[in-house]
Amino acid sequence: MKKNIIVGQSGGPTAVINASLCGILKEGLNHKEQVDKVYGMIHGIEGFLKDDYMDLTTLSEEDMEILKHTPAAYLGSCRFKLPEDFNSIVYPSLFEKFNQLNIGYFFYIGGNDSMDTVSKLSRYGERIGSDIRFIGVPKTIDNDLIETDHTPGFGSAAKYVASTVREIVLDASVYEQKAVTIIELMGRHAGWLTAASVLARKKKDDNPVLIYLPESNFDLENFARDLEQALEKRNCVIVCVSEGISDSNGKFICEYGSEASVDNFGHKMLTGCGKVLENFVRNRFGVKVRSVELNVSQRCSGMVVSGTDVEEAALAGMEGVKGACRGETGKMVAFARVSGPGEEYRMECRFVDVNQVCNQEKAVPAQWITGDGNDIGEEFIQYALPLIQGEPDRVMENGIPKYLYR
Amino acid sequence: MKKNIIVGQSGGPTAVINASLCGILKEGLNHKEQVDKVYGMIHGIEGFLKDDYMDLTTLSEEDMEILKHTPAAYLGSCRFKLPEDFNSIVYPSLFEKFNQLNIGYFFYIGGNDSMDTVSKLSRYGERIGSDIRFIGVPKTIDNDLIETDHTPGFGSAAKYVASTVREIVLDASVYEQKAVTIIELMGRHAGWLTAASVLARKKKDDNPVLIYLPESNFDLENFARDLEQALEKRNCVIVCVSEGISDSNGKFICEYGSEASVDNFGHKMLTGCGKVLENFVRNRFGVKVRSVELNVSQRCSGMVVSGTDVEEAALAGMEGVKGACRGETGKMVAFARVSGPGEEYRMECRFVDVNQVCNQEKAVPAQWITGDGNDIGEEFIQYALPLIQGEPDRVMENGIPKYLYR
Repeated sequence: MKKNIIVGQSGGPTAVINASLCGILKEGLNHKEQVDKVYGMIHGIEGFLKDDYMDLTTLSEEDMEILKHTPAAYLGSCRFKLPEDFNSIVYPSLFEKFNQLNIGYFFYIGGNDSMDTVSKLSRYGERIGSDIRFIGVPKTIDNDLIETDHTPGFGSAAKYVASTVREIVLDASVYEQKAVTIIELMGRHAGWLTAASVLARKKKDDNPVLIYLPESNFDLENFARDLEQALEKRNCVIVCVSEGISDSNGKFICEYGSEASVDNFGHKMLTGCGKVLENFVRNRFGVKVRSVELNVSQRCSGMVVSGTDVEEAALAGMEGVKGACRGETGKMVAFARVSGPGEEYRMECRFVDVNQVCNQEKAVPAQWITGDGNDIGEEFIQYALPLIQGEPDRVMENGIPKYLYR
Repeated sequence: MKKNIIVGQSGGPTAVINASLCGILKEGLNHKEQVDKVYGMIHGIEGFLKDDYMDLTTLSEEDMEILKHTPAAYLGSCRFKLPEDFNSIVYPSLFEKFNQLNIGYFFYIGGNDSMDTVSKLSRYGERIGSDIRFIGVPKTIDNDLIETDHTPGFGSAAKYVASTVREIVLDASVYEQKAVTIIELMGRHAGWLTAASVLARKKKDDNPVLIYLPESNFDLENFARDLEQALEKRNCVIVCVSEGISDSNGKFICEYGSEASVDNFGHKMLTGCGKVLENFVRNRFGVKVRSVELNVSQRCSGMVVSGTDVEEAALAGMEGVKGACRGETGKMVAFARVSGPGEEYRMECRFVDVNQVCNQEKAVPAQWITGDGNDIGEEFIQYALPLIQGEPDRVMENGIPKYLYR
């Protein structure tokens, strides 16, 4: 008997989460003997609980092509954690809705927390003898999922960071004076995206000359020493830091500023670590200093994306559908790098136990962080370079990118 | 007798200032009967005073093509004001250097302050009977030069702002909750670039729903009322503000925060009105709020540029050379829009008296600012749309843009 697919998007946006959605939709339509309709949950599982969903099968070929290159989450997203207690009324309520819609295949595109949802639903489904298959499709710019070589979304964010840092280096280098630019990048616990700033270098010892990840303890005096040495060698120094850098006591550097900055109304101003370091450098060194927070464009730029990432994200969705149709459930689609060092990059999709993946975090390996914690080594560069290759054609309207709106 | 060209870049970077440099270089090489070499001043007039210059004639065709699409200032820049007093030793020193290099044609690519340099040099040259021709080539993302329809650099910055704001709108819309995003855009006195955020709208009444320029007085209570009305109609509200918005007493909104500081030159650092408003909204409305400062990428993104802008910037350089070879001096190349409303966009280069241009600022016309100072009207849209059209091919290396380094 034919069954329907339902798919949701969860967690923070990426440039390619909709490419995975497209992959699921297209591959679903390819399995005519098993799959009838493809539904999308609006605002993930949270919206679905309020019967908020749509029929994706009605999208035209042209819409699907635009959707594939539309950043952020077309279906809307949520940050909703399913209860730990399987006796919660949420579970029978959800499965009743699944049955009403004749769902046979459930896909959730997201990161750690979203894999927790897949894990719980598949375990509950097993408990009640449901034949619905639950598959997680990975997505996060943070690249912090375990059991996969990398995650869809990271390649595009890394390409955006590397390209933008290269441009900021050019911008900051035009004047002939000592100047420091602090660039704050996303990454609360894992420094993958900040590490990608090393790819901006034109040659060795090029800017950004200092790179700090949350995986290493950050010490203000060590930073001052690193910066002093860098300023001796060049006028323009670019420093890249993860938003989540913290000191050896676990105190976030951004918290160093939270008492000092109070606005006219006496309210605390939340400043990022970039701003804190900017003020530190101004007061300590008296040089021109600027901080730049790349902010949400890192995850939602649709103009600077990796073609490799877009195609892999779509593939993850397609492989998810193929696997589910073969009988896989309680799994996440994972990427395995099958090429060795020095070989042309090749990647294969595999299925890993979603229970092993959820609620875990993968850090940048300690040996990839060099220079006493202020630089990134060659191993990371070789790892990351294949992931940022390729530029998809852009579809424009009136001079700006054309995206699909729900 | 053949003479040499010297060209400098001055003021803040743009995405297309190097396209103008390319235009001057290429057209200079076309005038073999009048022009021998093309020299570039390193760090503008300030570097030239220290004999810092290079021979641009040695650049290969391939280098010139990459240069055309390299953002920021290839030659380096300066913020150097020539003395008001023509008895200053700077003037004979400069003209002696010009004579040593057999300079016949002087080009300066820049904004208001740079046109002041062209004005002074041409007036001093006239006084001493020099036959060197002095031409200004306009450049500024601020679009605030008078006597020209628009300035090279604005179109690309406007395209970057419109595209990025459209993407931030998508990003901010994924969750189903009341949320406000404040986007702070460049523009201390003129709001042209902030006005370009209106181009991000997919349809009328779309986000960004509130846009504030420095041309209108900004009042916190009016803003609170505008925002309250907007939040009644939709969950996700995007607000775009110029960095330089100020209240009716002329006090900058960024000064409302205690972070307001003064730079080495005594300039107020206008980096914080987005943050100030973020804090205000959080405390007044208790909704989720984020502020995003697009920062230097507005002027140095080489990945999101307007093809029209690149070609016009190159044309400005070429027309400058043609004019100088014809005998023009003490002039700035200006753009005149020769197409009427509703007609296909056509632009012609003209020469305007540089003395009329320098040290002036062109504001966004009051009648283009609508909705009691919180919106931008159709006239601006029709003005700006032609300027952001076209996407040049991108030259990449290892997945990120390939740029020319000095």
